[in-house]
Amino acid sequence: MAITIRDIAREAGVSTATVSRALRGLPNVDDSTRARVQQVATSLDYVISPSASRLASGRTGSIAVVTPYVARWFFATIMSGIEIVMQNAGIDVLLMTVDPPNAHQRRPLGSRLRRRVDGALVLVLPPEDGQLQEVLDLEIPTSLIGVSVPDVPSVTIDDVLAARIATRHLLDLGHRRIGIIGGEPIKGVFTAEHDRLTGFLSVLTEADIEFDPLLEAFGYFTIYGGEQAMNALLTLPDRPTAVLAFSDEMAFGAMRSLRSHGLTPGVDVSLVGIDGHEMSEYLDLTTVAQPVAELGRLAAESLLGQMRNGSRNKDAESIRVPTQLIPRGSSARVQTG
Amino acid sequence: MAITIRDIAREAGVSTATVSRALRGLPNVDDSTRARVQQVATSLDYVISPSASRLASGRTGSIAVVTPYVARWFFATIMSGIEIVMQNAGIDVLLMTVDPPNAHQRRPLGSRLRRRVDGALVLVLPPEDGQLQEVLDLEIPTSLIGVSVPDVPSVTIDDVLAARIATRHLLDLGHRRIGIIGGEPIKGVFTAEHDRLTGFLSVLTEADIEFDPLLEAFGYFTIYGGEQAMNALLTLPDRPTAVLAFSDEMAFGAMRSLRSHGLTPGVDVSLVGIDGHEMSEYLDLTTVAQPVAELGRLAAESLLGQMRNGSRNKDAESIRVPTQLIPRGSSARVQTG
Repeated sequence: MAITIRDIAREAGVSTATVSRALRGLPNVDDSTRARVQQVATSLDYVISPSASRLASGRTGSIAVVTPYVARWFFATIMSGIEIVMQNAGIDVLLMTVDPPNAHQRRPLGSRLRRRVDGALVLVLPPEDGQLQEVLDLEIPTSLIGVSVPDVPSVTIDDVLAARIATRHLLDLGHRRIGIIGGEPIKGVFTAEHDRLTGFLSVLTEADIEFDPLLEAFGYFTIYGGEQAMNALLTLPDRPTAVLAFSDEMAFGAMRSLRSHGLTPGVDVSLVGIDGHEMSEYLDLTTVAQPVAELGRLAAESLLGQMRNGSRNKDAESIRVPTQLIPRGSSARVQTG
Repeated sequence: MAITIRDIAREAGVSTATVSRALRGLPNVDDSTRARVQQVATSLDYVISPSASRLASGRTGSIAVVTPYVARWFFATIMSGIEIVMQNAGIDVLLMTVDPPNAHQRRPLGSRLRRRVDGALVLVLPPEDGQLQEVLDLEIPTSLIGVSVPDVPSVTIDDVLAARIATRHLLDLGHRRIGIIGGEPIKGVFTAEHDRLTGFLSVLTEADIEFDPLLEAFGYFTIYGGEQAMNALLTLPDRPTAVLAFSDEMAFGAMRSLRSHGLTPGVDVSLVGIDGHEMSEYLDLTTVAQPVAELGRLAAESLLGQMRNGSRNKDAESIRVPTQLIPRGSSARVQTG
């Protein structure tokens, strides 16, 4: 049977209130009583319930990471950056998977978090998302990753610029008929997708190129989806000479599709991704790289700063992390003739 | 200021004990009183502290996943299998990264878990590992993934057999000089590594082939490490005609090394991995596949079963999940002459 503070009180000859105060290090207990209580507690192998102790201090010692995905490379890599910071700080990480914004039914999130965590990191949920709003309504320290909302600290890349860099690179190589592999036909699910499309279209417009809507395919941010999307683009009578995939994983699938059609990336069709996935170097994929683990690390440190202050810091600077074009063999000058 | 049960008691004209009992759904409160208390609590926007509520019930509503890694594909994919099951069950997942078994200093784990979680899933820590022992000493419901310990439910593959299948495949293709890319020179860090080496050597012995220790290189279970290991094997005067990598990610790196030396996997050197990584199909890598997300799912369900019983089930069957050879282009008949 578990030892309770009643057992210690009886053994030490003091009240349970005194035991509680003594063991929690609160004042108004004289030193000899505190020593006796601690000795009895140790002899009975009693451990203060961490939950009870935290209720007293008003802190949980935990933060929540709210994310729509776990296994995908981008999310797992962000998580690793968060984990390093939080482990060093002695803070536990509660993994809160939420249904993606376009799911039919979504479970309430606020009640899962309330009084259980001291802060929250929210990954990529769009600004108007109901579950993001639930987190913000808790008024606890919060940092966002991959999305920005007024008055909430965030760590992001400039997704418009990332797509602009990639598109400009393809234009510089002489490509004019450029396809894209986006996430989903229903727009507005994730901000990154919307912004990347905006960046892509803006560069085309500046170059006086009208975008042919037939050149847009969807890969749902998976390798398999990217393969299917490229398959679809290759069935077009007038197929693209280059394709921008909105993630490296979709680009990997697109490479596979090209090869299965007897085409070579960078020779027959140029291909650019966005991410800087660890495998992109190995597959010789041109990509616009973002420092993904670093996004997690920076957001975790911003959150710790707010937690030290005990409240959400509306003045905290939002951090925009730069991206970088890494040209590789998958993109080359357009074939003429 | 936060609303407390004292405020509700005053407003409803009952004792705080009655408020507490009413809101927690405990007996000995008549229905009209319970209704009045709930009405007042709702009107004051009062939320029961989940921690306090759980202290009363003796349950935390959380489990811990204890893992040495987060971002690596194998671990992130297991995590996704766990998360689906736990989310459906309404259980929170606490992510507990531990220092790998060979780290210089390791933080105590038992005190981080005690009374904070109702159960634990432990990934790949070897049986004699101190941190695994700390979890087992808590005597809470526990399931292991990728490692087995007597009297503790576990979900594993047969690592000896997986390596045997891979090695037998290479022997069947006529290879006799077979190299391996293992994890680390210091043995006994992870059971899987030890077992895979055992399986590999046993098949060689059965075929009357003496293993040349020069043919063993180490890739530390990363892509980059696999590349370095294959680079080392290729410097040998009498290099291997085939290589077994103990993970697909190390095999990906080995493929990269072969290509950078102007060699083609499956033509100049055959290559087999173990994992069934999503990318293995795209890279045409022969592999012995294990259902990784399924390992997480099965272990999570085993844990939920124990939690329903309220204790670790020493009689629970340990589950051994089958693996499967997937022959692809990276392995072929040995070149003669």
